[in-house]
Amino acid sequence: MPERAVGIFDSGVGGLTLLKEVVRLLPREDVLYVGDTARVPYGTKSSETVRRYAVESAGYLVQQGVKMLVVACNTASAVAIDELVSLFNIPVIGVIEPGSRRAAELTENLKIGVIGTEGTVKSGAYAKAIRMKNPTIDVISTACPLFVPLAEEGWSDHQIAEIAAREYLSPLIAAGVDTLVLGCTHYPLLKNTLRVVLGETIHLVDSAEETAKVVVETLGSVGANQSGQGSVRFFVTDVPDRFRRVGSAFLGRELQSVEQIVLDQ
Amino acid sequence: MPERAVGIFDSGVGGLTLLKEVVRLLPREDVLYVGDTARVPYGTKSSETVRRYAVESAGYLVQQGVKMLVVACNTASAVAIDELVSLFNIPVIGVIEPGSRRAAELTENLKIGVIGTEGTVKSGAYAKAIRMKNPTIDVISTACPLFVPLAEEGWSDHQIAEIAAREYLSPLIAAGVDTLVLGCTHYPLLKNTLRVVLGETIHLVDSAEETAKVVVETLGSVGANQSGQGSVRFFVTDVPDRFRRVGSAFLGRELQSVEQIVLDQ
Repeated sequence: MPERAVGIFDSGVGGLTLLKEVVRLLPREDVLYVGDTARVPYGTKSSETVRRYAVESAGYLVQQGVKMLVVACNTASAVAIDELVSLFNIPVIGVIEPGSRRAAELTENLKIGVIGTEGTVKSGAYAKAIRMKNPTIDVISTACPLFVPLAEEGWSDHQIAEIAAREYLSPLIAAGVDTLVLGCTHYPLLKNTLRVVLGETIHLVDSAEETAKVVVETLGSVGANQSGQGSVRFFVTDVPDRFRRVGSAFLGRELQSVEQIVLDQ
Repeated sequence: MPERAVGIFDSGVGGLTLLKEVVRLLPREDVLYVGDTARVPYGTKSSETVRRYAVESAGYLVQQGVKMLVVACNTASAVAIDELVSLFNIPVIGVIEPGSRRAAELTENLKIGVIGTEGTVKSGAYAKAIRMKNPTIDVISTACPLFVPLAEEGWSDHQIAEIAAREYLSPLIAAGVDTLVLGCTHYPLLKNTLRVVLGETIHLVDSAEETAKVVVETLGSVGANQSGQGSVRFFVTDVPDRFRRVGSAFLGRELQSVEQIVLDQ
């Protein structure tokens, strides 16, 4: 019997930052990755619509027989995780819980900032998850809508990214946060710029990194692949060209084996 | 028999700049507007996917009995107009042809710049349409991916918009264009910023304005509404909240009568 794969899905290329971490920590695992590139982005869409899309992507992976579902998209994690858990009989891991846990561990002054898409911020999912760890923590959240297009444009280190970051982050800096959660899989590409704006003392929590660690922990319960060579297959809902091109900057290498699938019919 | 309405569709809120012109010129017409907000944007997606979405939006309007289809979205106009013309037995008006005609009239040095989404620029539709008017015209096109999120963020007059505009437009200015086509319905919101960067002498062609004039011309053949009060009904594929909120900046007034519809089932 072939080993079952780990399933990861995202609205598009952003989840490749998480995939990269998973592959680094688990080089023997086979991974199937769905990017819903025909309907990206999720961050500006309603929770109802994002839930419907997430169920379709997850359903596709479950049909392929994955042993675990990883929701790389913060917006989908924020609004759809409960529904996915109730629908599918395999472990479902989102990015909100691991990022929140790490942030709650790191903060000393109990002031945490969260940045994400409009949908993620509006859901309040990070604030809720962080306060579950420690109800005395103050969480200040703000949406940064320009960050995704800046990252996809390859302008993460451009002067524009720095000005946008100052604009978005100054209320959080003024509020005195000592920890900032990157609540969107695109944002790790802006780490250098964020560091310039935030200075050296504020902790940066990369939800993708934290989630990859939880994938490793969870593999114990569903069975890690002991002898595999590790393969990654990509499935996208739009034609693969742009995903391949933009995605290689996110993954740090060329993307092979990208197939187009239909989810909405 | 009730008067038939004019049907306009767009990927989202951008087409409201065109709707605004149509309503200004034709205050007696009833208009149905479809915004495919669950799948916006089209500009980063493939021509195959955009064609499929455009046929679904247009099909919905035709089912509602519209007398004319106006494709407000430049990307959809660039890649789907031929298919829409062949599928539907009513006049179909896109934004590429009117914008191209006006630019070809205005240019004196026969150098025209076109800015638009990745999809519009990649299609080459403006260059083709302009060269049909005059094959000796040089057309220089460039994609400006940051402009749409900047307009939707309400940052059209922000310093960031000006820096982005300088970055995108300097090759066109260096090439000596005397006319610039705004080949995306979001871009009219950036007119002030573009004017600062371009100076006073370069003609700006707003495809939305030009297209509204063609709608007026075409109405002669299908029958203008002589006695109506003029109503606008909006149909969107995501929940209406964000469309209402962002759209009011585009239309310059509150949006009433916004209903959610399903196109992909």
